[in-house]
Amino acid sequence: MSLDPAAPDSATLGSAGELAALRRIFPILPPAAAATVGPGDDGAVIAAPDGRVVISTDLLVHGPDFRLAWSSPFDLGWKGAATNLADIAAMGARPTALVVAIAAPLDTLITDLEGIARGLRDACAELAPGVGVVGGDLSASDTLTIAVTVFGDLGGVDPVLRSGARAGDVIALAGTVGRAAAGLRLLFAQGIDEDGEPDPTAAAELVARRPAAVEAQLRPTPPIAAGVAAALAGATSMLDVSDGLLLDAGRIASASGFDLDIDLHALEADRAWIAGAAPELIEVSAEIVLTDGEDHSLLATFPATATLPGAFRPIGVVRQGDGRVLVNGEDPAVRTTGWDSFVGWDGAAG
Amino acid sequence: MSLDPAAPDSATLGSAGELAALRRIFPILPPAAAATVGPGDDGAVIAAPDGRVVISTDLLVHGPDFRLAWSSPFDLGWKGAATNLADIAAMGARPTALVVAIAAPLDTLITDLEGIARGLRDACAELAPGVGVVGGDLSASDTLTIAVTVFGDLGGVDPVLRSGARAGDVIALAGTVGRAAAGLRLLFAQGIDEDGEPDPTAAAELVARRPAAVEAQLRPTPPIAAGVAAALAGATSMLDVSDGLLLDAGRIASASGFDLDIDLHALEADRAWIAGAAPELIEVSAEIVLTDGEDHSLLATFPATATLPGAFRPIGVVRQGDGRVLVNGEDPAVRTTGWDSFVGWDGAAG
Repeated sequence: MSLDPAAPDSATLGSAGELAALRRIFPILPPAAAATVGPGDDGAVIAAPDGRVVISTDLLVHGPDFRLAWSSPFDLGWKGAATNLADIAAMGARPTALVVAIAAPLDTLITDLEGIARGLRDACAELAPGVGVVGGDLSASDTLTIAVTVFGDLGGVDPVLRSGARAGDVIALAGTVGRAAAGLRLLFAQGIDEDGEPDPTAAAELVARRPAAVEAQLRPTPPIAAGVAAALAGATSMLDVSDGLLLDAGRIASASGFDLDIDLHALEADRAWIAGAAPELIEVSAEIVLTDGEDHSLLATFPATATLPGAFRPIGVVRQGDGRVLVNGEDPAVRTTGWDSFVGWDGAAG
Repeated sequence: MSLDPAAPDSATLGSAGELAALRRIFPILPPAAAATVGPGDDGAVIAAPDGRVVISTDLLVHGPDFRLAWSSPFDLGWKGAATNLADIAAMGARPTALVVAIAAPLDTLITDLEGIARGLRDACAELAPGVGVVGGDLSASDTLTIAVTVFGDLGGVDPVLRSGARAGDVIALAGTVGRAAAGLRLLFAQGIDEDGEPDPTAAAELVARRPAAVEAQLRPTPPIAAGVAAALAGATSMLDVSDGLLLDAGRIASASGFDLDIDLHALEADRAWIAGAAPELIEVSAEIVLTDGEDHSLLATFPATATLPGAFRPIGVVRQGDGRVLVNGEDPAVRTTGWDSFVGWDGAAG
């Protein structure tokens, strides 16, 4: 096993070994301001000044969650950080640190692991400065898998759950809907080869034609700081939109026991963005903004008397009801089921 | 997708879907006394009364970390909890909660996921009562992978690191060494078919002959409560023995900058246990107790004036030196490299 941090770029996990890989990855990973003990011992120690800690965990698995034909290692690191940070924000908390466990095939290039580390680093720096990686694990596997667990501090404010929406509340959104989904639809339609399999050459050509939409899918930018702002402004419920606006609004509706009525006109800007960035999707832009997810925007409800934080715009109202989602006061005419990796995954490896 | 929690035992992740699987798993998972918000929202919230939280994460991957021909789903859940709890104990902290993310093939039986949940539950109940599962994730993958992240509270005491051993300290051990390793050696030698592949029938026959050793490998019982006891007694360094006593002692030695001198006579009871539970390994019992890991016992150093907590027994002394490990005052004659999943994994799937 080579212990040389300057191992050549052709080195793989299998040829260089775990220690050499870790020695190249560690210097890239961002330190966490909250860490009092960082990587290298049996456990890390982070500050939890509130006396409570918010925790969320997510797996990214090659196949159902990403395709290496479409996502670069940097993209995977970015997305692993961004989507998890959004879960902490959606609780009304400030993210503090991540741990990242990676299982990768033995022929994985160490430069690719470095790419994942750079994506983690840059996403933290851009979306949640001060957040860093305090620990992790590296294992061999036939299937590239990235497990991220993220921590947050509540700063003395109660967590914002899904169950607190009340009739008369304003529904508000921080961030965008439909962008990541437009990119995914383009990738499935145009980032493929003649057999319909994910293809890196086709994806590269697509990126050249439609950079904004594909970038929104591969490197989403959730409005992390808006989570704490919402909690301080008195948000009664919140979540991040990962599975589609209607599906996720339905989660608040059913947990709270009221109807959420979305005003489609309030999403005109989102539809206009799709029209500009992916004109071939104009006709389905209403469906996309309502049913597709992955921008990881923050959907929240606020008392009608609250002043919405700057990142939020009103997109509807909460009404008496039995936990349904309405669009413009009516039952939505589009499907409201979101992504399910067990139903939606075809097992292709691309 | 069936949403019926009473789906038949032949139901798989792919046939029943994620929701049905989660509805059957959730009721089995142990609640955490520390949880103020449990599973079901964007994140969980746990109490961190110390104002700091200890974190550790580990992957269990089919192939390098376990074989389904040898381990039952219950065993996997047990081991996932036990090994992670030991990492928190090794920091001198009290474990409070776990999150568990599972990626599994679509043909995985839901009854097997229930088995993993039962193993998690029973390990928490036996090893660290009050610890529970506060969140997780479930994803499709070609490779069964279990990612566990565990949290702990320091209770106002500083974490016990690897770097604090000083000349004159007593080296002490809570728990056992060599038992899990004896079981693993038996499995590799006798739990296989004619082609040398892991085999469930051969493993079952082995369990009937050598139950204690195999159980020690598949369901280790680290002395979790001894971690806090060590911190309170003034331990100067600590870790859990996962890769072999000499290798892990070497980690303390090199982090601390002193020599750790292990007294092999102090491990007579461990060798006697192997002689009783796996007589075919008598001749290599010294090597096993010194070089093989996975009992997840706690190795610590204490000032010579300290009163050792009841779970600990002295096994050597710390000496002036440059960070080496000695056995009976001499360079050990056995190999001191432990398990490396990148070198040790042959890719077999059993």
